[in-house]
Amino acid sequence: MDAISVIRAKRDGGRLTDAQIDWIIDAYTRGEVAHEQMSALAMAIFLQGMDRAEIARWTAAMIASGERMDFSSLPRPTADKHSTGGVGDKITLPLAPLVAACGAAVPQLSGRGLGHTGGTLDKLEAIPGWRAKLSGEEMLRVLGDVGCVICAAGEGLAPADRKLYALRDVTGTVESIPLIASSIMSKKIAEGTGSLVLDVKVGSGAFMKDLASARELAATMVGLGTDHGVRTVALLTGMATPLGRTAGNALEVRESVEVLAGGGPADVVELTLALAREMLDAAGLPDADPAKALADGSAMDHWRRMIAAQGGDPDAPLPVARERHVVTAESTGVLTGLDAYAVGLAAWRLGAGRARKEDPVQAGAGVEIHAKPGERVRQGEPLLTLHTDTPEKFDYALEALAGAVSYAPPGTEFTADPIVLDRIAP
Amino acid sequence: MDAISVIRAKRDGGRLTDAQIDWIIDAYTRGEVAHEQMSALAMAIFLQGMDRAEIARWTAAMIASGERMDFSSLPRPTADKHSTGGVGDKITLPLAPLVAACGAAVPQLSGRGLGHTGGTLDKLEAIPGWRAKLSGEEMLRVLGDVGCVICAAGEGLAPADRKLYALRDVTGTVESIPLIASSIMSKKIAEGTGSLVLDVKVGSGAFMKDLASARELAATMVGLGTDHGVRTVALLTGMATPLGRTAGNALEVRESVEVLAGGGPADVVELTLALAREMLDAAGLPDADPAKALADGSAMDHWRRMIAAQGGDPDAPLPVARERHVVTAESTGVLTGLDAYAVGLAAWRLGAGRARKEDPVQAGAGVEIHAKPGERVRQGEPLLTLHTDTPEKFDYALEALAGAVSYAPPGTEFTADPIVLDRIAP
Repeated sequence: MDAISVIRAKRDGGRLTDAQIDWIIDAYTRGEVAHEQMSALAMAIFLQGMDRAEIARWTAAMIASGERMDFSSLPRPTADKHSTGGVGDKITLPLAPLVAACGAAVPQLSGRGLGHTGGTLDKLEAIPGWRAKLSGEEMLRVLGDVGCVICAAGEGLAPADRKLYALRDVTGTVESIPLIASSIMSKKIAEGTGSLVLDVKVGSGAFMKDLASARELAATMVGLGTDHGVRTVALLTGMATPLGRTAGNALEVRESVEVLAGGGPADVVELTLALAREMLDAAGLPDADPAKALADGSAMDHWRRMIAAQGGDPDAPLPVARERHVVTAESTGVLTGLDAYAVGLAAWRLGAGRARKEDPVQAGAGVEIHAKPGERVRQGEPLLTLHTDTPEKFDYALEALAGAVSYAPPGTEFTADPIVLDRIAP
Repeated sequence: MDAISVIRAKRDGGRLTDAQIDWIIDAYTRGEVAHEQMSALAMAIFLQGMDRAEIARWTAAMIASGERMDFSSLPRPTADKHSTGGVGDKITLPLAPLVAACGAAVPQLSGRGLGHTGGTLDKLEAIPGWRAKLSGEEMLRVLGDVGCVICAAGEGLAPADRKLYALRDVTGTVESIPLIASSIMSKKIAEGTGSLVLDVKVGSGAFMKDLASARELAATMVGLGTDHGVRTVALLTGMATPLGRTAGNALEVRESVEVLAGGGPADVVELTLALAREMLDAAGLPDADPAKALADGSAMDHWRRMIAAQGGDPDAPLPVARERHVVTAESTGVLTGLDAYAVGLAAWRLGAGRARKEDPVQAGAGVEIHAKPGERVRQGEPLLTLHTDTPEKFDYALEALAGAVSYAPPGTEFTADPIVLDRIAP
């Protein structure tokens, strides 16, 4: 077996055999296959595709490259959620304690932001003292004591995916359905959750720009999870407009706490509840009532305990950026569009995200949204507030926002798209 | 400018701009663009192609990555030949001294074998004392004194191509017309020859397996040479069967000396003369008579002087392999096929070629051919002799030859294909 013959087989439009897939994933993990060989193969897969059986084997090989976790000792059923990434997508923050409050165990292994989408760990690190990195024992203890934990995945989980993900990021091979599906599902299956709800984003702020490709990605992942004995379901949700009214780390924590307190933006509440119901259903708890757990404070109680168990102070004031700049509405009328990608890029440029893995992020940076599509606006009134510690970046962020906002004349009927666009079950 | 945006542009089927091409070739040469990024781009180019203008710019950028040589101080016109590589292709050895004997200067920068095709430098190194590596001054002195020189290209010539060629070799991105054409022509144009004849091989033993793709490669290269002021013409020549009656280093030197002595296999003589006439025409010497220079010993005289000028002893006995194995004919009748790729692979496995750039080659190893297509054979008589210093490789070489030979009943009319299949001029 050699790398060149595997690359050539896919390059020429053929199927990879099980033996070829097993060999190349293992040899790449061990460093025998070089990065430049794997990137050529990734580009060949990007352009030639993989069929369902190839994707399944590729995923299994990535799982087999490392260790698997096991939550079977827990007295509760486990439920996990994964989002394909969007702008203002802070849903994991209220969702994990909410689902724990309803009786499931939520072992949420999360990532950091790269590019225009934010990362859950970066957001939570805005809370003074909070730690993303836990040992396996610490993780199990928090999960057992509180019912939910949000932390970084250990080094031993799907190391092949860890290497390949970093490689794809610098070689223009990210937006491939076989590669995205196998990357997400290898981590989630290795993590050992019993059930999984996928939030597949669609729109300008997501990797999948249209409903058809989002549906294909969702169906591929649901199939992979099901084949590995994980009860898996996917919701396709809109990402043409940012979720909620904030994009940025501390800004999104503040909004999440509002939701846990029974308030918060309607779209964030709606999606949090929809995903919670799916997770509880998949975990075999169809009678749980997440709306009640938000209203009666039990979700908030789980949040506070989870944050404290990971070293954070839930009562500490959140960081605030040193400088602000207000963007006002250019017209009077109805807001009809606020582009998610543009807002995500602006937040990133203000310091909320990072260009390279090793860069720091600003806890206070980001974009606050004062009006969302469907709402009335008046010329000259605040539309967005930009937050940053590096005000020399305002112009760069404003450039990203050029053309991002659209208006209709006063009195125009406009109904924003629903949040949940479709549901894919096995 | 960044590598990912260049990769994505080509991946998505777009054209690369002049600025993108200039930047990525320069940044890759300097090490700013990583190997894994360039290999992803090479695979995208392999699968999406490049148009004529992109290939021209890519070639120009590779030329600009290093120094250019200049032979304008020589009193004779310069003529060069390049073969795309085949099995038993020793033509450069008799051709360079023959064309020099007819009045042109032949600065032949050659390469080493990789894979199943042999390398001119490996063949000449079978001659005791002969040196492939000359300084720029040594090269010019030999060229001025003798009229021809065959040596390794200096490090400074098209360094971008040097890096990219080694990368393509290990990433399954060799057989791409835009990448082959730009690689060959960047080196040849940087070398500074006034005229160039391309020998584009077609058939199982060549990179181009069919006439249509060989014609496209030839036309692309003739266009590139012409655009850069080099008088360029291409012959398409057959590589379904090995050239001549030997494949291997010392074996091919011996056959080349037979041709220079006025003998040798008819196909080698025919192709040597056809290429010599094209080179002399392109160099502005249409009245030269290469057949006469072979017959009167002046070509042999130039050979002996060239070998001696590079430290070799033209009278020294050539190395002979320690072990031989004879393959006999399985039928009596007319030989109708002897597959070039199979013979090349067998010679390579016997030790004539290398698997990795740093491997040594055996001077004496290779395949001797006793009957060629169109000739009569008798069952049990010798068909091939395998030569090697490592007889444990005989079985491995014989495997490569399985199914390589075909026969027709005695008396069958069979005419072998002509050597020169087509000619492509500007």
